[in-house]
Amino acid sequence: KMASGKCLTKGSPAPGPVPKDKIRIYSMRFCPFAQRARLVLAAKGINHETVNINLKDKPEWYLAKNPFGLVPTLETSAGEIIYESPITCDYLDEVYAGKKLLPSSAYGKAQQKMMLEHFSKATLYFYKIPMGKIKGDDVSGLETELKEKFGKFNEYLVKKKSKFFGGDSITMIDYMMWPFFERLEGFGLEHCMAGTPELKKWTERMWEDPAVKACMYGTDFYKVYIESYTAGKVDYDYGL
Amino acid sequence: KMASGKCLTKGSPAPGPVPKDKIRIYSMRFCPFAQRARLVLAAKGINHETVNINLKDKPEWYLAKNPFGLVPTLETSAGEIIYESPITCDYLDEVYAGKKLLPSSAYGKAQQKMMLEHFSKATLYFYKIPMGKIKGDDVSGLETELKEKFGKFNEYLVKKKSKFFGGDSITMIDYMMWPFFERLEGFGLEHCMAGTPELKKWTERMWEDPAVKACMYGTDFYKVYIESYTAGKVDYDYGL
Repeated sequence: KMASGKCLTKGSPAPGPVPKDKIRIYSMRFCPFAQRARLVLAAKGINHETVNINLKDKPEWYLAKNPFGLVPTLETSAGEIIYESPITCDYLDEVYAGKKLLPSSAYGKAQQKMMLEHFSKATLYFYKIPMGKIKGDDVSGLETELKEKFGKFNEYLVKKKSKFFGGDSITMIDYMMWPFFERLEGFGLEHCMAGTPELKKWTERMWEDPAVKACMYGTDFYKVYIESYTAGKVDYDYGL
Repeated sequence: KMASGKCLTKGSPAPGPVPKDKIRIYSMRFCPFAQRARLVLAAKGINHETVNINLKDKPEWYLAKNPFGLVPTLETSAGEIIYESPITCDYLDEVYAGKKLLPSSAYGKAQQKMMLEHFSKATLYFYKIPMGKIKGDDVSGLETELKEKFGKFNEYLVKKKSKFFGGDSITMIDYMMWPFFERLEGFGLEHCMAGTPELKKWTERMWEDPAVKACMYGTDFYKVYIESYTAGKVDYDYGL
């Protein structure tokens, strides 16, 4: 069942202990927060197994792992549990060898965390606008607000004169922001980036990253997902 | 003006550069979030200067330092700016020598960050209940919810069998939670801790900590502060 990627649901038995050489991620295939941790797992080449969770009809045992009932959650072979996407990503970066994604300096880390705070205030728009559209609401005000936020990120890249948000190579902050930008076209939001050319170039560079390529589903998947979600009949196993 | 501790307000000139041997904290004397950073500064014995900010009538230049307009904000002699209370505290702990407040292991850090996520969902009650009371609202439902949250923290200490939330000595998570508990009596919330004896013992231990003693104002101050705040005539300089 796990190998197929299909989600575990109410009544599904709990998976056994995590094998010694692996870490387990509880995920949902289309969740942008879980994707952050999936990107870090891919970028660092970490040996892992994936258990997908039905977030509408959760297995009873899942709340004992993560009281918030959200994804991602990590579980180690020692039975340690880590949840909340930025916490899981920092944990993976610190524990595992391979490319370090967080800056080594305290100020560099602080800059990425502050950037994430700013970005977090934009994430709700990625849901509110497409859902409002499907329902036939006027979303022009929300779109203007999102464009303003994109303007700030664009300005940041212009001032920093760098290819990515942490410098000229991909670092943690890029992976924290990326899952939402990957969904722009699927969610019908690509026009909000029309006035922010440096941000657009950043997305073009991100599409070329091997970890991004390994973790993506594609615009058609996100279109179907957001439509089924809004219609109240979400299909977490779409395409399997 | 800065030496007196009185807050800088709209029209106040911006302070000059930070002296080489110091770090500056922008604070508000009664703000629990700023107090987190003040506790870390005190616990580690960091040489610093304090600039208090009038949060209702902010100096024009303050938003250029911290676009959120909140406290705490740190400024270094190199002109680096760090804001958001957990980010400032982690920064201070990593950069400065002295007692390390965050655990050294990645999992230990993750545990404290997860605990903080849980605690953060409780902080609003510390305002909503006293303000509701002053307005004459029925706050019994909110009080029940806060007691349930206190119950979870109590259970955590019981299971962990430790004096503090990170072990038998004070660590970062204790300082992140403390400022809200320091205000319990001032905010008229001490009865919400009646059913949680281990949590109460934790507060008694915290009151004995030298950094806690160095940073506190006292119950009378918080009483006056919350009353003046609710009445819409907050006095940030009360007692000076």
